[in-house]
Amino acid sequence: MSAHASQSECIETEVVDVVAYMTRLGEAARSAASQMRRAVTGDKNRALLAMAEQLQRRRSDILDANAADLARGQANGLEPALLDRLALSDARIDAMVEGLEQVAALPDPVGEIDGLRFRPSGIQVGQMRVPLGVIGIIYESRPNVTLEAASLCLKSGNASILRGGSEARDSNAAIAACIREGLREAGLPESAVQVVATTDRAAVGQLIAMPEYVDVIIPRGGKSLIERISREARVPVIKHLDGICHVYVDATADREKALAIAVNAKTHRYGTCNTMETLLIDAPVAEGLLPPLAEAYAEHGVELRGCERARAILTDIAAATEEDWATEYLAPVLAIRVVDGIDAAIAHIERYGSHHTDAIVTEDYGLARRFMAEVDSSSVMVNASTRFADGFEYGLGAEIGISTDKLHARGPVGLEGLTTRKYVVLGDGQVRR
Amino acid sequence: MSAHASQSECIETEVVDVVAYMTRLGEAARSAASQMRRAVTGDKNRALLAMAEQLQRRRSDILDANAADLARGQANGLEPALLDRLALSDARIDAMVEGLEQVAALPDPVGEIDGLRFRPSGIQVGQMRVPLGVIGIIYESRPNVTLEAASLCLKSGNASILRGGSEARDSNAAIAACIREGLREAGLPESAVQVVATTDRAAVGQLIAMPEYVDVIIPRGGKSLIERISREARVPVIKHLDGICHVYVDATADREKALAIAVNAKTHRYGTCNTMETLLIDAPVAEGLLPPLAEAYAEHGVELRGCERARAILTDIAAATEEDWATEYLAPVLAIRVVDGIDAAIAHIERYGSHHTDAIVTEDYGLARRFMAEVDSSSVMVNASTRFADGFEYGLGAEIGISTDKLHARGPVGLEGLTTRKYVVLGDGQVRR
Repeated sequence: MSAHASQSECIETEVVDVVAYMTRLGEAARSAASQMRRAVTGDKNRALLAMAEQLQRRRSDILDANAADLARGQANGLEPALLDRLALSDARIDAMVEGLEQVAALPDPVGEIDGLRFRPSGIQVGQMRVPLGVIGIIYESRPNVTLEAASLCLKSGNASILRGGSEARDSNAAIAACIREGLREAGLPESAVQVVATTDRAAVGQLIAMPEYVDVIIPRGGKSLIERISREARVPVIKHLDGICHVYVDATADREKALAIAVNAKTHRYGTCNTMETLLIDAPVAEGLLPPLAEAYAEHGVELRGCERARAILTDIAAATEEDWATEYLAPVLAIRVVDGIDAAIAHIERYGSHHTDAIVTEDYGLARRFMAEVDSSSVMVNASTRFADGFEYGLGAEIGISTDKLHARGPVGLEGLTTRKYVVLGDGQVRR
Repeated sequence: MSAHASQSECIETEVVDVVAYMTRLGEAARSAASQMRRAVTGDKNRALLAMAEQLQRRRSDILDANAADLARGQANGLEPALLDRLALSDARIDAMVEGLEQVAALPDPVGEIDGLRFRPSGIQVGQMRVPLGVIGIIYESRPNVTLEAASLCLKSGNASILRGGSEARDSNAAIAACIREGLREAGLPESAVQVVATTDRAAVGQLIAMPEYVDVIIPRGGKSLIERISREARVPVIKHLDGICHVYVDATADREKALAIAVNAKTHRYGTCNTMETLLIDAPVAEGLLPPLAEAYAEHGVELRGCERARAILTDIAAATEEDWATEYLAPVLAIRVVDGIDAAIAHIERYGSHHTDAIVTEDYGLARRFMAEVDSSSVMVNASTRFADGFEYGLGAEIGISTDKLHARGPVGLEGLTTRKYVVLGDGQVRR
């Protein structure tokens, strides 16, 4: 927003308009949230399936709009990786349709009552799962996220305000038309999902500063965006910062499992937050495991950086610095450290990790139990690849993101993470003595 | 803290010291949190019972320290209500001892694993309840809160930094000595509970600005303190703002239940957040219920303020203004509004309520079901007094406060609210395909 401040009067007028515009969206969302709170499961599912039908019907409009976005992006010199994320295709639209059908098929979390019990006073007390209210989602120029976010917020009974990257402007507008039509057909308020139409960046600043209209903000994007939003938000934020994930191979590990997990956790995909960035290896097995691992990594083109002890075994790899231990590469690069047992491994993870996902490979019951209890990460694994840290793999059906926060939602966030629980008390005229 | 800014150099030096002091507490707490995370239930309970024993043994020291606080408070012209909250007695110390024994007897929430299930990939996924880490608690000059907060944070496996009001300085120091000794006897780190020793208000500013050392802040006190902390905190806050609680008496209510609940919700205690502040009464029964209610309230010395329709029945009461509907009186004052049915009641609660606790009195199944689903408050009740919204009444065993937030913990916050859940994944060498 400093970019705005440095510009001239006409921008200021625009900012004033943005505040009024966002306030209108906020008011409409708050009002829609009251209606969504009582929307029945069938209507929510009908809206999702109607949206899927609209996507099918307007497929060519959406692809045309996306082509306009892509042409503008190319003219503006957008990087190839960003163009790829922006691009829609028949296959991607099919995936969006399928995603909507999957969310429609998920159980509705709203209204579930847990633990209803009689108390000595005669009242019954339980907790009912209810929507959060209004959810603001800020994300990059990936049009499929528009639909994903809309569908999860809708199914969980929330109203949402979606603010995607400006490069996807036309695609998002075309998708928003499908969403509105789906809501209309199901008799739900059209403002239950609102896609921010302005590309003015001040819209983000306003969205995160309206606690009277917005209950929670979920930013999805690069670390610097998320840090800025967390710092400036006047609304609670469910966020994902970095994923500096570790695999610790203990001396008690099964050799085949260790090799399979260490290779998969790094090489299955490089750009994902649950990819291993540092391999910790117990000293007694380092000499036996590092050479075959190095060979496997070489086949995948993974660059290795090691501590002194690792480099005594793998003599041709570069030295890892302090910075390497604290880096989320998101690339075919791996830091390797030889440690002395589980205590040193846990200490390393505590110091350099990002509390995302960490795994131990061991056949020792006591060590597995200790690692599970003592490693303070959103996912802690025994004998499994860190790549499993994912809403679909965990059975949430879908995920809106992976939270590295401790409060409210931790790890993959599905429908349940978009709800909260209130107490319900059933009495028969009881009063407090 | 503006008070500091307006003062001279020597304060600045003091502030610098406070930052260094609070940083040391933060570092010690973070380190203690790692140990507390793996503390076994038996040791935590032993520490709690050893603290109780220390309270008994040092009873006269504590009362002496408290007498010094009271004398200073009186000399400084502290209000009688605040002096009363500050005062300890043999009975209050007995209650503190009993409180510790009760917390020791509560089940330990840490380590509980929910929903461990096999996934198609062969991994098992579940969620394990774990401590939040380091909890900062900021509260008023009520020495018994020091022990209450310490015991709940300890039992839930957290380290805590407690910052009580400066008027209770000596009492808190005496209680802190009991806490330290209890921790020592149980072999737990003494810095698992740290009572801030300085009365410099800059300590609060620092405590809420150390996300590297503090995971969550729980402020307990007046609304302005909590608003300021929420605004300035760089750490998540679990907070309680106001309790503008409603009882809605529907035309379908049982007359005796309606009278009992409406009287109890207002008159059982006036200064508590779960006390009814506005009575909403359905038009068809207003004429029959308001006169006997007015009589009962008059016996208790409760001042009534009503809408025009209420004043047409109770002709001698004052008019309620817009401000009355939005006020938490915390006093023997009640606003009364005659409404047309449940929709008007819910609309009033949505507009003026504080999402704390709201109750309906009705014998109609459908209306009870609607009120439960549609009223967006932390506690929603049918045919029970709002005064039941309380950790003990709900069976939490104890409460650290009542949250009016939506995220993480909503309503009375007990041990569970001081924990979070991480995912645990148990595999047998599985990798992601």
